[in-house]
Amino acid sequence: MSKTLADIGEFGLIHRIQTLVAKRGVQSPDITLGMGDDAAAFRPHEGYELLVTCDTMVEGRHFLKGAITARELGKRAMVMNISDIGAMGGRPLYALVSLGLRADTLVGDVEEMYQGFIEELNPFQAAIIGGNITKSEHDLFVDITLIGEVERGALVRRSTAREGDAVLVTGYPGQAAAGLQLLLNAKGHEPFQDHPLVNAYNRPDHRAKEGRAMALSGYITSMIDISDGFLGDLGHICEESHVGVELLQKRLPVSEHLNQITLPPGKTIYDLVMGNSDDYELIITCRPQNVGDVRSVISSISPVPITEVGRVIPQSEGIQLVLLDGTKMNMIPKGWDHFNESSPKQ
Amino acid sequence: MSKTLADIGEFGLIHRIQTLVAKRGVQSPDITLGMGDDAAAFRPHEGYELLVTCDTMVEGRHFLKGAITARELGKRAMVMNISDIGAMGGRPLYALVSLGLRADTLVGDVEEMYQGFIEELNPFQAAIIGGNITKSEHDLFVDITLIGEVERGALVRRSTAREGDAVLVTGYPGQAAAGLQLLLNAKGHEPFQDHPLVNAYNRPDHRAKEGRAMALSGYITSMIDISDGFLGDLGHICEESHVGVELLQKRLPVSEHLNQITLPPGKTIYDLVMGNSDDYELIITCRPQNVGDVRSVISSISPVPITEVGRVIPQSEGIQLVLLDGTKMNMIPKGWDHFNESSPKQ
Repeated sequence: MSKTLADIGEFGLIHRIQTLVAKRGVQSPDITLGMGDDAAAFRPHEGYELLVTCDTMVEGRHFLKGAITARELGKRAMVMNISDIGAMGGRPLYALVSLGLRADTLVGDVEEMYQGFIEELNPFQAAIIGGNITKSEHDLFVDITLIGEVERGALVRRSTAREGDAVLVTGYPGQAAAGLQLLLNAKGHEPFQDHPLVNAYNRPDHRAKEGRAMALSGYITSMIDISDGFLGDLGHICEESHVGVELLQKRLPVSEHLNQITLPPGKTIYDLVMGNSDDYELIITCRPQNVGDVRSVISSISPVPITEVGRVIPQSEGIQLVLLDGTKMNMIPKGWDHFNESSPKQ
Repeated sequence: MSKTLADIGEFGLIHRIQTLVAKRGVQSPDITLGMGDDAAAFRPHEGYELLVTCDTMVEGRHFLKGAITARELGKRAMVMNISDIGAMGGRPLYALVSLGLRADTLVGDVEEMYQGFIEELNPFQAAIIGGNITKSEHDLFVDITLIGEVERGALVRRSTAREGDAVLVTGYPGQAAAGLQLLLNAKGHEPFQDHPLVNAYNRPDHRAKEGRAMALSGYITSMIDISDGFLGDLGHICEESHVGVELLQKRLPVSEHLNQITLPPGKTIYDLVMGNSDDYELIITCRPQNVGDVRSVISSISPVPITEVGRVIPQSEGIQLVLLDGTKMNMIPKGWDHFNESSPKQ
């Protein structure tokens, strides 16, 4: 019979996690003290700033029970955080994992989740150095703190886009939300498990490598990762940089998979591309004369497409979408708002 | 009418939190980038190692709804983490706060909780630099990551106690658990709100200042804070240091408040002192010839009592309690285990 946390207890679970992390995870000489004391300790590298981010996934809210495996859940939770470090131009170093688990949670599932964390961290030689296990009566949650580093002076903010800049985006935003919708529409999730859009939701990639290359290139003026939808995160750039953006509808990247789905009533394909969706793509701004350089840097390290979709305009003009027929539409950015009743529900 | 999170939304709440933190919190020139981007960024100090810890409080498990104010909850959650940094000999620097909140959570309560965080951080000139807000359907949770620093080579572990060392403890362990019991026994928590034992549970102190002084003194061999009860955390020292401990019952510090309560059936006062309780006191080991030095260092900065309670013995002898009549009893350390059914329930 599969063991639950009630069977092996908190300290039994911690022991298993420590063993797994020691065996499969990365060891670093900079870690003075790993898991198992009151705090972890590490030596920072000279010449670097440290980056810290945290993100939480709550069952029923950020992932669907039964529609994602424990290993995928682990990978997805880590990808969210790696994406944030990458969007600053940084490299992930150390993770701390806080889990809220039920007594009937399977030990094997927790180990699989850690396996997922480790699979995402190992390519960066990044390590899990701490965390916390607690009991939750109802909702399972995964809260990860990820520490990274970036060369001093190289970090890229969302608040530094400038009027006249070109606006670019990697990949195909909107796919993750469409995948979630497929899962929600399917009663017994099975048939959709291998659909490319479901993949985009349950098994997203990050663009941390691309984000770091961008930061080190010096060609870009601002950057953000897409976790609140293309328009939502473009809105964050606009708000923090005190600018507006003119988007060209004809330039918006539409994935072939998105093109094949039945559109929800009253929605166009562009609504899906721009709407709430956590795709972990990057929105980048750069001086117009550097667009070619940005493309070269990205294409030299990654097959991900990068599309120029518009330009930065004065803040007073807001976010405008130039439709296919040339008319302009004012857009109101509105990302995921977990407490707003009109936000999409899972 | 008091506003809820459903009224102002996630971004409205984040805006309020940022305003509160900017106004009441500490500013540091080492923070390159505070709240509001994909990640926060800071410059580490040369000659220091960084410490990281995280701890979660879940409603109904780590605190009782209605029996603690939002501000106290904030203070208590931060104290737990400050205690961990202090128990390594470090100084708190930066906090990240992940909250899981319900849609009907009052905005004022969240602001009070942040006020509590800030009140605990400001004395250390430590700042909140990031975090995350998410919606939880059922259980409210607070997960804090605290980053600290310690001079290179000065950190004190739990794994370095040596045979022959003296074992000391600060304050009066067991009070927090007794306070919790008073709250659980009282139906309408009110009359007990000002009881010293309830204070010990809802409004605990940390010994971070004392822990740091100990580390810098060079007099101690190991240290841990008490979050799993005196015996539980002594057990962690024994396990990680591969040693045993002989405790003298007559030396165990019994608080006057603990002495006044009605003992649970079958329990002695010493069971309460040693049992599961999160008191955030420190257990310290040092060479026997340094006990006086340790006392002097502590008393020069703090009124907290420090008591020598036993000595480190070989691992094969385990943890032994020498009773008042001289007989010895083998003790099995067993801290809070959130998944073990025989652990105390809240």
